[in-house]
Amino acid sequence: MTEPLRVGLIGLGTVGQGVVRVLARNGAQIARRAGRPIEIVAAATRDPSKPRNCELKGIKISADPFSVVRADVDVVVELIGGLDPAERLIGEALGRGRHVVTANKALLAERGVALFQRAQAAGSILAFEAAVAGGIPIIKVLREGLVANRVTGIAGIINGTSNYILTQMREREAAFADVLAEAQKLGYAEADPTFDVEGIDAAHKLTILAAIAFGTPLASGIVRAEGISQIQAQDIALAGELGYRIKSLGIAKQTGHGVELRVHPTLVPEGKLLAKVDGVLNAVLVDGDAIGQTVYVGRGAGAEATASAVIADLVDIARLHGAAARHWVAPLGVTGATAPPPLLPIENVESAYYLRLRVADEPGVLRALTSILAEADISVEAILQKEPKPGADATIAIITSVVSEARFRQALDRMQQLPFLRPGTVRLRVEHFE
Amino acid sequence: MTEPLRVGLIGLGTVGQGVVRVLARNGAQIARRAGRPIEIVAAATRDPSKPRNCELKGIKISADPFSVVRADVDVVVELIGGLDPAERLIGEALGRGRHVVTANKALLAERGVALFQRAQAAGSILAFEAAVAGGIPIIKVLREGLVANRVTGIAGIINGTSNYILTQMREREAAFADVLAEAQKLGYAEADPTFDVEGIDAAHKLTILAAIAFGTPLASGIVRAEGISQIQAQDIALAGELGYRIKSLGIAKQTGHGVELRVHPTLVPEGKLLAKVDGVLNAVLVDGDAIGQTVYVGRGAGAEATASAVIADLVDIARLHGAAARHWVAPLGVTGATAPPPLLPIENVESAYYLRLRVADEPGVLRALTSILAEADISVEAILQKEPKPGADATIAIITSVVSEARFRQALDRMQQLPFLRPGTVRLRVEHFE
Repeated sequence: MTEPLRVGLIGLGTVGQGVVRVLARNGAQIARRAGRPIEIVAAATRDPSKPRNCELKGIKISADPFSVVRADVDVVVELIGGLDPAERLIGEALGRGRHVVTANKALLAERGVALFQRAQAAGSILAFEAAVAGGIPIIKVLREGLVANRVTGIAGIINGTSNYILTQMREREAAFADVLAEAQKLGYAEADPTFDVEGIDAAHKLTILAAIAFGTPLASGIVRAEGISQIQAQDIALAGELGYRIKSLGIAKQTGHGVELRVHPTLVPEGKLLAKVDGVLNAVLVDGDAIGQTVYVGRGAGAEATASAVIADLVDIARLHGAAARHWVAPLGVTGATAPPPLLPIENVESAYYLRLRVADEPGVLRALTSILAEADISVEAILQKEPKPGADATIAIITSVVSEARFRQALDRMQQLPFLRPGTVRLRVEHFE
Repeated sequence: MTEPLRVGLIGLGTVGQGVVRVLARNGAQIARRAGRPIEIVAAATRDPSKPRNCELKGIKISADPFSVVRADVDVVVELIGGLDPAERLIGEALGRGRHVVTANKALLAERGVALFQRAQAAGSILAFEAAVAGGIPIIKVLREGLVANRVTGIAGIINGTSNYILTQMREREAAFADVLAEAQKLGYAEADPTFDVEGIDAAHKLTILAAIAFGTPLASGIVRAEGISQIQAQDIALAGELGYRIKSLGIAKQTGHGVELRVHPTLVPEGKLLAKVDGVLNAVLVDGDAIGQTVYVGRGAGAEATASAVIADLVDIARLHGAAARHWVAPLGVTGATAPPPLLPIENVESAYYLRLRVADEPGVLRALTSILAEADISVEAILQKEPKPGADATIAIITSVVSEARFRQALDRMQQLPFLRPGTVRLRVEHFE
């Protein structure tokens, strides 16, 4: 067996401890498969004296993350997240000719281009399997397993917190706020849940997936993100009666006019696999021109699931010894070999819609609504109206045909003028995966 | 861009044509990702004059497959299947220092050890992503994506024909023979369907998956295979009423006493993802100690889905230039680095069971049956008895607790002695994936 791959670890939180633990537990098997042992020789953490759930003997621990970058290591693993100092640490590591493994989706999505260019110039690998969908090897699948395919679409449940909350809301017919509070208690949601429940985390991940699949840029703000905080138990119930589950999806689609990138709550027919992925699980559907639809399901977070992805990157680096790094590492859009494809403006995005309207219980209401839809060339695929209590407003739920955002919005604006319409209209997108 | 990877193709059937077509259509993207173009320069087919659904210009076509092995190529792709002459062709190609890509599961499962040893001695890659689950990159996922994990179990819908037949039987409440005849007409089943419906094809694939995950040997006869030809529409219906779907699963499990390998019709709770994988789709569930359960779903066959896997292997070879081949290619059990784990005798395999009994409609029947189960320490988890027509026999369906094959069989033998039991007892295994 050749000499070990020397690893420096920045961050000894849950994932960092998971990496140490799994390497200790399965080290012999991993070494056999990698062709050489993988050894963590240095680690940095804010409080080195804090007790950890793993064996740290033989690892030089420091409070200074830059000491790890400057130590005699082959690879630096960055697990502290956030933009600074992670960006400076990775930049310096690459500058020193180290390979880097990171789980930092925010950094890659917002500032990835410069980092990948730096890696390319240094002939180093910047690997990031753990940045998207935890232990599901979706980066490897997209870049290597499905390499023969022109990817036409990606749809993913890529934020476990949102999926957990939506699942609980449905199963217990509970309100968003109540479930969120509980998720926070259980550690499934952060004290400030904005990143997760407003779709920002999913947007980061989608940006990374799309960069690999379509060559779209790694840049902030290119994904239209809508969270789940406005979803009401009532909509989940109605969607259910219509045969749908509500999922927060990240969607990237190659259209004839550009790539569309969006994160939003979405009705999915309950017969589809994505509809059945519940709780904190993640799932990514990839549509390719040769393979058709494939779906990958697993834990999107957790100490050892994420550690599994980090170690897979380390093994790839150990196997490759840096050879072929140039072709292996950079997302399509970074190499400059191809111009990034255009992005589709959100007004041109097409989808079916779920619409819930509250209306006065009077004659002519349905005729007025359906006239507006018909004049906008939008079909009603399904409609549900419950008998209102005497004197109360009526609720109407509609599933429409596929229509552009712009055209749908125009019809919606016209509806808002109707005298019998009450406030509180809800619209959600529907995906059929057909 | 460096010089092209020169490929020789043996077999121009559906998959071979798919490989040519996808390489032509997506060649530029594939070359960018591989770091060099992939060019098919020679091909062999029994009847070179036959018209094909792909462009063959620039490819030297021959009726002699050995001419491809001897041509000036870097890689030989074997797509003719069967043991001979495929074994001799691959052997000679490896002997000549060529890399080999094959979709030949029967050959690998039955005679793989010698071929991998030959590849190892030659420093060549013998790649086989297309041999299992078509376009789903399950070999790469197991070997690279989940490399950090100790795999504890695999369960797969890995024969599309069987899954199609079971799905149709359920949806149309039709008999096995009728659905099979139709599947043959549609091209989903062979004229001689034995390999598919009797579990032999799935056993080959499971042998390959287990070799990677557990290091069990590549050898024939190590998988206990039971087909779907005995499944009756009635059982599918009863299973449905009890909340289960019947799927033909390949199951490999690491137990404390060895590895169990089996293919058989299995009841799966309808809430589980595997229960929802219908039609010709394949799905593989992998349970790892770090990642937990992950599921991979997609087309298990078809020209371009399989071509996608073949080309992924070609790209890996193009990227690696043969470096690290030794560590990359051999399933665990082939390197000799570790002794293969013991295989669990089938009598020790534990699972829950579904049992359908036909009995005379008389007092004391249930007591006699449940006494036998209780004395064997087997619990009844669910039971269903329909009211029989006057004078007719009664049907009882039971779901049991988890029990060893040996203990269950003893109880079953005792039941056969009961005077009121009619012939035609059905027993199927149940998997809960918990």
